[in-house]
Amino acid sequence: MTDEKRIERLSAMLKRRGIVLPAFEIYGGVSGLIDYGPVGASIRRRVIQNWVEHWTINGDIVEIDSPTITPEPVLVASGHVGEFNDLMTQCGKCSAAFRADQLAENNHPNPEILEANEIDEILISNEIECPNCGDKNWTPSKPMNLMFGTKIGAMRASRQAYMRPETAQGMFMLYPSLYRHFRQKLPFGAIQTGKGYRNEISPRQGMIRLREFNMAELEYFIDPENPPVIDLSMKKEIVSFIPDPHGEDYKEVKISFSEAIDQGVMKDHTVAYFLSRTLDFLINVGINPSKIRFRQHEGTEMAHYAEDCWDCEIFGEHGWIECVGIANRTCHDLLSHEKHSNSNSLRAWREFDEPKTDTKEVLAPNTSILGPMFRGKAGLVLESLKQLDELPDNFPFELQIKDGTKVEITEEMVERKTIHTSIAGEWFTPHVIEPAFGIDRIIWHILDHAYEETEKEGEKYNLLRLSESIAPVDLIVLPLFEKEGMGETARKLNLQINQIKGVISSIDSSKSIGRRYARADEIGIPWAVTVDHISLEDETVTVRRRDDQKQVRTEIQLLLNLIRLGNVSSLF
Amino acid sequence: MTDEKRIERLSAMLKRRGIVLPAFEIYGGVSGLIDYGPVGASIRRRVIQNWVEHWTINGDIVEIDSPTITPEPVLVASGHVGEFNDLMTQCGKCSAAFRADQLAENNHPNPEILEANEIDEILISNEIECPNCGDKNWTPSKPMNLMFGTKIGAMRASRQAYMRPETAQGMFMLYPSLYRHFRQKLPFGAIQTGKGYRNEISPRQGMIRLREFNMAELEYFIDPENPPVIDLSMKKEIVSFIPDPHGEDYKEVKISFSEAIDQGVMKDHTVAYFLSRTLDFLINVGINPSKIRFRQHEGTEMAHYAEDCWDCEIFGEHGWIECVGIANRTCHDLLSHEKHSNSNSLRAWREFDEPKTDTKEVLAPNTSILGPMFRGKAGLVLESLKQLDELPDNFPFELQIKDGTKVEITEEMVERKTIHTSIAGEWFTPHVIEPAFGIDRIIWHILDHAYEETEKEGEKYNLLRLSESIAPVDLIVLPLFEKEGMGETARKLNLQINQIKGVISSIDSSKSIGRRYARADEIGIPWAVTVDHISLEDETVTVRRRDDQKQVRTEIQLLLNLIRLGNVSSLF
Repeated sequence: MTDEKRIERLSAMLKRRGIVLPAFEIYGGVSGLIDYGPVGASIRRRVIQNWVEHWTINGDIVEIDSPTITPEPVLVASGHVGEFNDLMTQCGKCSAAFRADQLAENNHPNPEILEANEIDEILISNEIECPNCGDKNWTPSKPMNLMFGTKIGAMRASRQAYMRPETAQGMFMLYPSLYRHFRQKLPFGAIQTGKGYRNEISPRQGMIRLREFNMAELEYFIDPENPPVIDLSMKKEIVSFIPDPHGEDYKEVKISFSEAIDQGVMKDHTVAYFLSRTLDFLINVGINPSKIRFRQHEGTEMAHYAEDCWDCEIFGEHGWIECVGIANRTCHDLLSHEKHSNSNSLRAWREFDEPKTDTKEVLAPNTSILGPMFRGKAGLVLESLKQLDELPDNFPFELQIKDGTKVEITEEMVERKTIHTSIAGEWFTPHVIEPAFGIDRIIWHILDHAYEETEKEGEKYNLLRLSESIAPVDLIVLPLFEKEGMGETARKLNLQINQIKGVISSIDSSKSIGRRYARADEIGIPWAVTVDHISLEDETVTVRRRDDQKQVRTEIQLLLNLIRLGNVSSLF
Repeated sequence: MTDEKRIERLSAMLKRRGIVLPAFEIYGGVSGLIDYGPVGASIRRRVIQNWVEHWTINGDIVEIDSPTITPEPVLVASGHVGEFNDLMTQCGKCSAAFRADQLAENNHPNPEILEANEIDEILISNEIECPNCGDKNWTPSKPMNLMFGTKIGAMRASRQAYMRPETAQGMFMLYPSLYRHFRQKLPFGAIQTGKGYRNEISPRQGMIRLREFNMAELEYFIDPENPPVIDLSMKKEIVSFIPDPHGEDYKEVKISFSEAIDQGVMKDHTVAYFLSRTLDFLINVGINPSKIRFRQHEGTEMAHYAEDCWDCEIFGEHGWIECVGIANRTCHDLLSHEKHSNSNSLRAWREFDEPKTDTKEVLAPNTSILGPMFRGKAGLVLESLKQLDELPDNFPFELQIKDGTKVEITEEMVERKTIHTSIAGEWFTPHVIEPAFGIDRIIWHILDHAYEETEKEGEKYNLLRLSESIAPVDLIVLPLFEKEGMGETARKLNLQINQIKGVISSIDSSKSIGRRYARADEIGIPWAVTVDHISLEDETVTVRRRDDQKQVRTEIQLLLNLIRLGNVSSLF
C-alpha cells in the first residue's frame, strides 16, 4: 500500500519548500531528528494552538508546562526506568545495532510481542542478514532502555535524570496544584504540549518514528464512582471502529458514536467522549475523516496500567499509523507516585450523598469502679477496652493489656453501649483518562492528505489543500509588478492584514505572477491577493482561491473586514 | 535593594495560585527546574505568542523549529564544547560542588572574570567556608562544561550529543533553507522559541538562573556592506543607556533612540533597531519602562565572536538582571560551521552595483611555434604559462613546468596581452544580529512589576496588574448565585466568549462574590463579568475592571462585540 515514489516526491517538496527537513543536514544529519523550516514551523505552531484551544474551551481543562529533564525517581515510579525498552541486537561483525523485532519482521506477523529468545531463534533459523554488512552473526537480543540519560549537577553531587519519554508525568506531578486550582472538585483535566524523547535504536519512516517529537497529552481526572455524565446521542457521523481486534467479535464496524455507545461497542463512556472529541479535532485540522479509524487494544497489547485503550489510527502512505492513543489509566499513576514519593496530596475527597453512619458496640468503662480497682494500670485497661474488636458474650472475662498482663473485667465495671459515628466522605485516588497525541505524525498525515499532484498547461503542478485553520500563512499579497506604486500598495496591505490578531500574511514580488501563484499553491496558502493597475485607481484587489483557482475582484476595505471575521470564502 | 520578604510573599502567591512552582516537588524538587501551573502556563504561552507575532509582522522574519538534542560536531563548531564553562570547586570534606566565583563573591567585585588560580587564592586567603558543611578545604577550581550530555543511539553505534545551550544554532543549521525561502535576498531573519539547557553547578535566584529555560532568539542575516537602512528618527521615548560602561565615557544617559543614533551613543544602527523593537515588545507585555535600561558590553565581557553587544536589563527584586542580549555576531557562526562542515551553502551572493572588471596581463601562447617545439610537453608548458603570477621583464626566460623540468621561452613563442573579465558579484558570509531573550526572566519581571500588595477592608489584598495582552485569562464569568438559572446563563456566556478566536474566558461559582473577585484580581484577570438576577430579565451583565474595581452594567450582545474588537475598556 506504500507508494515509495509518492513519499519521495512529497518529502522532496517538504524539504525544498522549507516545511519539514532532515535536521543537522550540513553535518550529515541525524536519523530521527527533523527541523520544521520557515513554512513548516508555522503549521506546527497552528496545529498545537488549535489543539490547546480545542481542549480548553469548556473551562474544565487547563494547560500546564513542566520540564523535559526528569529526575530518575519520577520515572522509576512511572515504570519507564524498568519497562521502557526495545529488544536490541548487534551484528557480531560490524557492531551495528538494530531493533531485534524489526529484523524479524518478514518472518513473523507480529514480532513486537515476542520474547528475546524467540526472536533470536527466528534470526538464527532464518539466517537474517545484517542490513549493514551482510553478516549473519547476531549477539543475543537484550532489552535496551529507550530514554536519553543525562546528569543534573556536577561530579559526585550529580543526579541521574532522563529526557522525558512522555509529557504525562508533568500533569501527575502537578496534581496537587490542579486539585487546588479546581477547588477540590472533580472532574478536571490538564494538558501539556512539548517535546518527548525516545532513543530509537534504528529510526525509520520519516516523521512517524522520531527520536525527539512533539507531543500533546491530556490527563482528565475523574471519580470512578461518579464518572462524568456523557451524552453522545447527537454524534451521528459514521466512523470506523475495530473493537477488541483479536477477541471473538473482531470486525470493523462503521457506526456513529451514538450507536457505538448504544450497542456496547464502547463500554467506557468517558473514553468514548474523548475519542469523539479527538475526531472533531482531526477533521478541523484537515485530516480526511474517511482515513480515520478507532482500534481497541487487545488485552496483550494494552499497557499494564490501562483498563481500556483505543488507538486513533490514520491512513496514509505508511499504512495505518497510530496517531492518538486514548487510555483509561485508572488510578495507576497517582497511586504509584503516592507510594514512591510518600506524598499525601495525590488524592481527592469524595463527599457521600448522605453521610454514612458507622455503628459500633462498645464497652463503656465505669471509671469510678475501674480507677480504684486498677490504680496505675487503669489507663492501660481503658485503652484495651476501647480497642476490643469483639465484645465478650459473658462476664467476667479476661482482658489482655499492653504490659502483657491480663486482668479480669466484671459486669459492673462496664456498660454495653451502641455508638453511632457520622462519616461525611472519604479520600480516594482519582482515575485518569489520557488522550495522547503524536503531533508530528498528525502533521505528516495532514500533509499527506493535502498533497495533490496534478498538471497545469502540460506541466506538473503541486497543490497542498491545507485546512484554513492550520495553513502556514492565511493570505499572500502579490503586487502584479514592482512598479507604479503597486509594490508600496501591496506592502501597506500586507502590514494591515498582519495587524489583525491571529492572521498571518506574507508578500511575494519575485518572478511572474503565475510562478508566484504556483509557489503559494504548493505550500497551501488558501488565498492570494493581487494588487494590479486597477487597484491603484479604485482601491480594489483580486482574491484568488487556492482550491479552484477562481478569482474575484473586491474592495480592499471589504476584504479586510472579511479577514477579521474569518470569512474570506463568502466572497465566492 | 533585594526585599527578600517581598520575594518570599510573591513566590508563595505564585505557588499557591498555580502560576510558577518548584518542579517535582512531591519528590523533594530539583533546583533550577520549575513548572508553569494552570495559571502560569497560559501567561507563558501568551508571552511567547506575542513575541512571535511581534517579530514576524513585517514578513522579513519567519519562524523555524529545530531539535533540542544536538550532535557534538555542531557544538564544537559553535564553541560550546570548548568554552561553555564555569569554574567549579568541591568541598574537600563533604564533596558538595559550587561555582567558584560565587564563593568568592563577597571578596571580589567581579569574580566572574577571574582565572582559576586567582579564585583559589581568594578562597584560601579569606578562609571561605563550605555553605554545606562549614569546612574550608577546597579542591583546585577547574572549568566544568555546562551542557547536559547524552548519547544518541545504542552501544558502539552511539554518538555524543548535548541538550542545546541556545536555540540559535538551529537557525544557522537552517540557513540554506532560509536563503532559499527568501529567494536569495538579504536581509532576512529567523526566530525560534523553545527550551534551552544549562547544567548550572548551583542554581539560585528562582526563575533567574534555571537549568532548563524558555528561550526565544532571532538571527537577522545582513550583508555588512549593504546593511538595512534604519530610520529611528520617530523613536522619541526617553530610554536609559549605559554605553561602554568601563570605558572613559562611562555614564548612564537618558535619551531617545533617535538621539542615541545622532549622538553616536549607538554606532551599529541595526543593533539599535533591534534594541528599540525589544523595548516595544517589553512594554507591550507589561514591563515597566522606567525599569528598563540598555547596557553595552565592555570589551572584556563581550563574547569572542561579537562586534557590538548590548544587554537589555530589567530592574526587579533581584536588582538589574540581563533579560535580553543583542549582539552583532558578525560572520562568526556561519563561517565556523562552513569550516567544520565543509558545507558550501552557508553564503550569500552579492551582486555588484556595476559589474567589476578584472584586468590582467598575460602571455598568450603562439601555439604554432610552441607545439612543434615542445611536442608532448606542450600541454604542460601552456598550463604553466597560464598560471604565471608575474610576467618576466625580459626574454628569453626560464619556465618551470609541472614535471619538474625547466624550458626556455623566447619572445616569439608568446604575445603579451591585457585581458578584461567582467565579474557580476561575489559570494560572501552574511553577518548576523542576534537578539536573544530569556523568557522566564521576562515573565518573572512581568509578575514582579505587576504584583501589588494592598489592603481592603482591613485585610491584605493582592493585585496582579498584568497587561491585557498576556493575562492568563481575558475574562472571568461569575454567576452571582448557582440558582434560578444564573449558573446556566453564566456557562452559556462563558462558552460564547471562549468561541471568539484568541479569547480565553473561565467561570467561577464557588464561594462569595467578594472572594471570587479577590481570587480573579490576584491572578491578574482584567475583567470580571457577573451574571445576576437582573441578567435573567434583560440580558445585561455587570463588567468589573480589575485595576480600579469599577463596575458598569452592559448588554451581553454589546459586551460580546467589544470582546471581539479587543476593546472592553471602552465601556468605562
